[in-house]
Amino acid sequence: MSEEAEDAGAAPAPPPSDRARLRRKPGRGRYDRASIDAILDAAPIGHVAWVLDGQPYATPTNVWRQGDRLYWHGSAGSRLLRAADGQPVCVTVTHLDGLVLARSATNHSVNFRSVMVMGTAHLVTDAAEAEAALEALIESLYPGRWAQLRPMTVKERNATGVMWVGLAEASAKVRAEGSHDDPGDETWPVWAGVIPVRTTRGEPEPDPYVTDGSPAPQVRLP
Amino acid sequence: MSEEAEDAGAAPAPPPSDRARLRRKPGRGRYDRASIDAILDAAPIGHVAWVLDGQPYATPTNVWRQGDRLYWHGSAGSRLLRAADGQPVCVTVTHLDGLVLARSATNHSVNFRSVMVMGTAHLVTDAAEAEAALEALIESLYPGRWAQLRPMTVKERNATGVMWVGLAEASAKVRAEGSHDDPGDETWPVWAGVIPVRTTRGEPEPDPYVTDGSPAPQVRLP
Repeated sequence: MSEEAEDAGAAPAPPPSDRARLRRKPGRGRYDRASIDAILDAAPIGHVAWVLDGQPYATPTNVWRQGDRLYWHGSAGSRLLRAADGQPVCVTVTHLDGLVLARSATNHSVNFRSVMVMGTAHLVTDAAEAEAALEALIESLYPGRWAQLRPMTVKERNATGVMWVGLAEASAKVRAEGSHDDPGDETWPVWAGVIPVRTTRGEPEPDPYVTDGSPAPQVRLP
Repeated sequence: MSEEAEDAGAAPAPPPSDRARLRRKPGRGRYDRASIDAILDAAPIGHVAWVLDGQPYATPTNVWRQGDRLYWHGSAGSRLLRAADGQPVCVTVTHLDGLVLARSATNHSVNFRSVMVMGTAHLVTDAAEAEAALEALIESLYPGRWAQLRPMTVKERNATGVMWVGLAEASAKVRAEGSHDDPGDETWPVWAGVIPVRTTRGEPEPDPYVTDGSPAPQVRLP
């Protein structure tokens, strides 16, 4: 992210903890909640790192933010939800925004926006709170849709587990710029620059029971 | 993935280990190398789950496959490369292919292709082997580009660490189908179906030193 994107005069937010502090290329780090929230809120999925019997797992799953918490869900009996409750996790979301081609291999890079959230995972035990979180998931993707759906049954609710981690130890990392070559490399005769990468939506594919030609709902992401 | 995509008559490959076996929706699991390799080879980035001082991390990074190994790289002094050598890791790549909208919240889903690779991380210690792996990274994204670049220096080579995990314990998970509603829900008056999600390339943005109008190189991914 270019420096002019920072608020003029505002001191950058400091890292919330030492382990959340970026070591490599610290200039790419962002610790303010506005930057963190924007990256999280643009991500339909993330990867949850958790540990079972000494083996770490990186599990891809839908994630969504409500206030100071990042949520995910799964089958109530899933290994992740049973094993991670009360344990340390790291939830990462990453957007690939571009391929960066330089004239030396080392200066190749990617443009991206990512957030890592470290903390303790909490399983939601209150049924109403869990259902509110699931409503927030649907609404985060499809604003206004929850009220239009066939209501959730108690059986469905009980089969679904909801988990969250707080955002106190979150850090963002952003690269959003052109390619850079070492002095003297600029005239090496090979193309250099950025090839943008975009995530887009295709044409909606209604199921066979949509017979009235009604349009697909409003979708917020991606 | 639809059933007809399976080789007719070929028995599906069994899970390589119990911990690599899919528990939830096992019908979405694939354990054959062709399925696994295709998903890995389509992914410019993945997430490496690793553990430091009891805290798991999910670190986003470029990944690339060579034969029976999945590689990633980083600064030679990075915490990940120093801490994970000889330790258990899980590297996951995920492609989001679509949003699946049903008439009940529970039947919402996403179409995706993912691979999880579990195993022991190995830091490459041989300089020639590491450079060959970095060449494979460049070639995996930009076929033919390595030979066109300003050659890598010893200093650059020494500053870069390369790490890999074997593919012996890998599993793929795929959902690639339409929406499904519970019997009786089909007439609930709300749109249902799939909204495809695609990753595409934008118009290349050459740097200021590309003055001859030469085109951007061939890019294999995404």
